[in-house]
Formats: sequence, C-alpha cells, structure tokens
Amino acid sequence: MATHLETLETPVPIVDLDRLTHNLDRMAAYATLHDLRLRPHVKTHKAPRIATEQLQRGAVGLTCATTQELETMADVCDDLLLAYPPVGAARLERLMRLPSSVRLTVAVDSADCLPALSMAARLARRELEVYVEVDVGMQRVGVAPSHAAVSLAKAVRDTEALRFAGVTFYPGHVREAVGEQGSAIAALSTALNALQESLLDAGLPPRVISGGSTPLAWRIHEVAGVTEVRPGTYVYNDRTTAAIQACDWDDCALTVLATVVSTAVPGQCVVDAGTKALAREPLRGEGDGYAAVLDHPEVVVTRMSEEHGILDLSHTDWQPRVGDRVRLVPNHVCIVVQQFDTVVGVRGDYVETTWPVAARGRGAIVLDEDSKPRRPRMA
Amino acid sequence: MATHLETLETPVPIVDLDRLTHNLDRMAAYATLHDLRLRPHVKTHKAPRIATEQLQRGAVGLTCATTQELETMADVCDDLLLAYPPVGAARLERLMRLPSSVRLTVAVDSADCLPALSMAARLARRELEVYVEVDVGMQRVGVAPSHAAVSLAKAVRDTEALRFAGVTFYPGHVREAVGEQGSAIAALSTALNALQESLLDAGLPPRVISGGSTPLAWRIHEVAGVTEVRPGTYVYNDRTTAAIQACDWDDCALTVLATVVSTAVPGQCVVDAGTKALAREPLRGEGDGYAAVLDHPEVVVTRMSEEHGILDLSHTDWQPRVGDRVRLVPNHVCIVVQQFDTVVGVRGDYVETTWPVAARGRGAIVLDEDSKPRRPRMA
Repeated sequence: MATHLETLETPVPIVDLDRLTHNLDRMAAYATLHDLRLRPHVKTHKAPRIATEQLQRGAVGLTCATTQELETMADVCDDLLLAYPPVGAARLERLMRLPSSVRLTVAVDSADCLPALSMAARLARRELEVYVEVDVGMQRVGVAPSHAAVSLAKAVRDTEALRFAGVTFYPGHVREAVGEQGSAIAALSTALNALQESLLDAGLPPRVISGGSTPLAWRIHEVAGVTEVRPGTYVYNDRTTAAIQACDWDDCALTVLATVVSTAVPGQCVVDAGTKALAREPLRGEGDGYAAVLDHPEVVVTRMSEEHGILDLSHTDWQPRVGDRVRLVPNHVCIVVQQFDTVVGVRGDYVETTWPVAARGRGAIVLDEDSKPRRPRMA
Repeated sequence: MATHLETLETPVPIVDLDRLTHNLDRMAAYATLHDLRLRPHVKTHKAPRIATEQLQRGAVGLTCATTQELETMADVCDDLLLAYPPVGAARLERLMRLPSSVRLTVAVDSADCLPALSMAARLARRELEVYVEVDVGMQRVGVAPSHAAVSLAKAVRDTEALRFAGVTFYPGHVREAVGEQGSAIAALSTALNALQESLLDAGLPPRVISGGSTPLAWRIHEVAGVTEVRPGTYVYNDRTTAAIQACDWDDCALTVLATVVSTAVPGQCVVDAGTKALAREPLRGEGDGYAAVLDHPEVVVTRMSEEHGILDLSHTDWQPRVGDRVRLVPNHVCIVVQQFDTVVGVRGDYVETTWPVAARGRGAIVLDEDSKPRRPRMA
C-alpha cells in the first residue's frame, strides 16, 4: 500500500504531480507556439529532477541566481545562465570551477565588474557569454536601456575572454492585473526597439533578447524583439500567480500540508505552518494574509509566528478540529521551497515520490587551509 | 593565516563570538540572580554547540518547537520541553522515539489531544510531564488562565502516563518599549496569581510556572510566581530586540555578510542578501526596512527580491561601490538562521570556527515501506 498523505508529519510541501505536469506542458507549448527560447529559472524548484523535465520539454538551458544553483544544475544541463551580477572573488572562483563542458552566460550591469570577471575567466581558460542587464522599470539592477547599455556592451566586447551575447531584462514591475499590462508591454517594446537599433548602429547586434517572469510570461511574445524567456514560478504557481490571473487556482501545484494544532482561542484555529514554512510574503494589493486553504480559499493565514499559522475563521462555515489536515497555498512559493530539504510528489491523497531541494542553501563554506575548525573560546 | 571574512562567499551568517559569549553570560547571570530556572528556546540557534554553552552556564534544560529540534538536542541534553501542541500521529511517533533517557515535557492547550498522547506514551512505556498552556493575551495558543486551565490540568492528572507539571505561557504580546511593560506585568501577575490559587484549591499545585520571550526576559522576575524562563533570541539578538530596548545595538551578535553587487540605479545599492537570506520580517512600528547596516544603522534594506536587498542611500553620506562588503543586522534573526545550513563564528575580521544549523528543516520524510521512491510519471 502506498503512503497516504495522512501519515506524513507536518508541515511538509506537497506537489500535485498532475498539476505540475500540466504547468510544465503549458509553458513548453507557449514557448514553442511563439518561437521563444525557454530558459526556465530554477530558483522556484531548485531540483534537478524538475529541471530535467523542463529540458525534456524543449528548454534550451536553465537560469540560476546562485552558485549553489549553478553547481547543482550542472549535473543535468550544460547551458546555464547566471542571471545575477558576477561580483565577488569567492563567487567568481566558484563560477569558474563549474565543469568546462558548461556553456556559461552571465548578466552584468556594470563595467566595474569586467576586469575581475575577465581575469577569472582567463585563469580558468574559459570564455563567457555576457548579457547586458537593462532596467526596464523595476529599479533593481540594470543600466538604462539607452547609451549606458550600448557603452557597457562595447566594454564587454572589448574585454578579453568575454563575448557580448545579448540583452536581458526582468519586467518584475509589470505584475498588475492583466488589463493594465497593455501599456507596459507597449513601453517595453518601444524601449527595446530603440536599444536594439542603437546596438546595431554600434556594430553589436544582440543575438538574444532575454525577458521573463511568470506574471508576464503569457504575453511576453507581444514584447517586440524578445527571443528568450525565463519564467520560474510557473512550475508550481502560488496565491500571487492566481491573484494576478497568470494561472487558475487549480493550477497551484504546491501546497503546504499542515495540521490544526489548536482551537483554544475562539474565532480562529492554529496550524503548524508559520513563517518557517510559509514565509511572510504579502499578496501586494491582491488580498490579505500569507496563505489560503486550498479547499476553502476564503480562509487565510492572517497572523504567524515561527511555527504557528493562525487561520481566521470569521468568514467561513468550516469548523476545523484539532488534528484536522489542511493544504495551504502560499503567497510566494519560491520562498516556501527554500525552507524545506525535501518535496513530496502526490497523486490524489497518496505519495508517489519525493525529491530533494538539492540547490537550496549556499553549499559548503570554504575556509583557508590554515583555518582549523575548532571549538570557539566562549567561556 | 586564518581565513579573513573578505574571502567568504556571500551571503553568509556571521556570529561575533565575543558578543555571543557576552549574551550567554548575561542571561545566565540574570537567571541566577533572580533564582529562575533558565530553559532557553533553541529555535533561534538550532545548534547543539550553542545549546551546550547554555547548559554549561546553568540552563536546566532546553525548549524546542519541532521534533527536529528535539531529536537534535537529545544529543546534548536529557531534559527537553516541547513548547508546542503535541498533535498528529507522525509527530507523536517521532516524539516517542526520543531516547528513553530524555525527560520529556510537552505543553497542551486542549483535552482533545490527551487520549492520543497518553496512548503513544503508554506504547512507548514513557511518562510525560505536561504543562498546561494558558493564553495571557497573545491570542495564539493556550486556554484562558481560569477555570478552563484548571479543568485541563485535572484532565491531565487523570490521564494515564501523563503528569501535570505546571503552567506555561508566552507573553509575546508584551513587546512594546520598556515604558509600557509595567501595566502588562501587573496584569500578568494578577492573572497568574489567581490561576495558581485555583490550582491549589483543586489540589493541583503547579511545580513550574514557565514564562518567556526575550523581549520581556529582563523583567520576567517581576511577574509573580514565575519559576522558569525560555528566552531564545537573546543569544544573537536582532534589530527588533535592539529597537524595543531589550538589548544594545552592540549586543547584536549575528549579522548577514553581504556584497554590494549593483549600484546601477541611482540613490540605492543592491546587496546579495534578499528574502532568501534576510527574510521579510517587519520591525512592527519601530522603524522601516528589513535589516540595517551594522556600521551604518541609518542605512536599511527597504526593498527585497529573493536574492536582492536594496539599500536606500538617501539618508547617508556613505557611498558603497560594487564589491564592497556590508554586515546586515536582520529584523528577526530566528528566521535568518533557518535559511542557512552553516554559521560562521568570527573574532574581529577573522573566521575562528563554523558550526552547522543542525536542527534546521524537518528531517527525513518517512514513507511506508511499500511506497517505493520512483521517478514520477510526468510525461
């Protein structure tokens, strides 16, 4: 007999394998339909097993944010993008230790980081593909998509061991409801068109224009010039993805299974998933709370401690009892996955498989050989 | 030559060993001074090494919130409190597998959970100490500290394999600035006095009255009847502890070392510590942002993505450059520690030791023997 969900200790992240498959298939079909290179971001799942499913469905490579993700994914993929500034000696050293068979692309938004990057690449006898990161409105990283971008592209071209490969942007600010995306898409197209022309004028045609983000994923083909997309959250989806209508509620593949541990305080119940399971991510204008009950979306986690989630029962007829199980759809699934070492794959109420969140965390801490680990002098 | 902080990959949690020692010593001295049993909560450090330091300084036992914490701490301590409702078959099974040498106490707030608890204890041939959890105003778990508590204590006494050991409460709501705590302490004392008398009248004198929380720690001796304290955060402290004046800024022992990775957008810089390192915990009326720079407390992380922390530079003369390092004091250190597998202990700018966050996560997922792990059918 297979393991029933009921027997698992909680809290535990549960993935509905049918929904996961549907989400994987849908994005692959979208990319094929619009002739976009799909380079999914692994930050959401951090699992080689799911990355493999993405590659089997036609993904051209993978996108990573950390060196731990790169190292883990190098086992299953030889075309990796670090969509993160390659800054810091330790980060560069670890980057360069990736298998030489891996075609490595990095995104830069500053000429200051090029000398160290080039030196590291030359010492490792590697050539790196480089995307110039432009800021299209999120105001996080990225140079302005104008002469600053062209001049950074020139600097890349003129730096040994680096090859200018294209332009990357993250439209994370375009996450509002579908109706308001039109003008943002038009503005994006205009900016990218102008940048592409300037780069052509400078003799630097971008081979790739890489955009992304799940919220805009289904309309990214409308942005002029985009050739590559990097959605991450779509594999699992979450309460935010559903709220902004980038998926249906029934497309939420990952839930946190939790147990009702207390009903002592009237008007609420307490489950054993708090901030150390659900994370404290807001829904940003789309509603209250930090997670909703899968089968009772009107019931949300309104307060949390580290190991306590408090469900407000004032808007429901549902009357949970101590010991009852609930499946919670979190606001932001990527942070939830980071809390756990293992994910459980289910069909219906039965466990079919488990897999490690292999790329969570940061990996081993490398000390100089002379730094002998020893008991600290505290007394 | 010892490892310099400069060589570590970021983000990484750094503990100043001198500050840690000071914090450990100070709480131990406070408990001794006021003749309080110190039973520190391990949720903050999740590390047997620090637990050992606490025990060597006179702690009578340890407090845990999860089975993973209990299992890990059983290696170094034989007197453990699960300050969490012992609900759910899997949780009970794991509890009962703790070494028989461990004296185990659990906190309950419902008679509904007693039959399963008793059965599990009898099957494991154990006797459990039981605290009755009362709600003193936080409205999370706990029965009212009145007849409901007395009747639950009676139910415990009348249940096989369980022993009524005392009363526990968590004054998490009393976290406001020092000036406002006086009346809360008076109210607590009144409620606990009345409860203690009712329990005595019922022939159920509580051997222990267990309170706790770092915010109130230094005044808990003023609460009438309290015999045991369970502070956790005091080992490391954080921006919140400092903001509510339960520690000085210089008592913040844990910082997240981060690297400036981008200055492309004017007026700000981006560091490589985002929600997957700092967590998104608010300062709750005590200030903005999610973390502050140790050496520039006026500079705070005002926005975050998963791997990006954005420092607002509009109120400082400090002009960080790409590649600079900063040490960030997080709002809530317990959630930060949960993000990492290893913590680095430093003196000044040099690494002296590292230790594992051994009790983070949830431990292995136990499947029925017939549930063979296998590749999921996704295609």
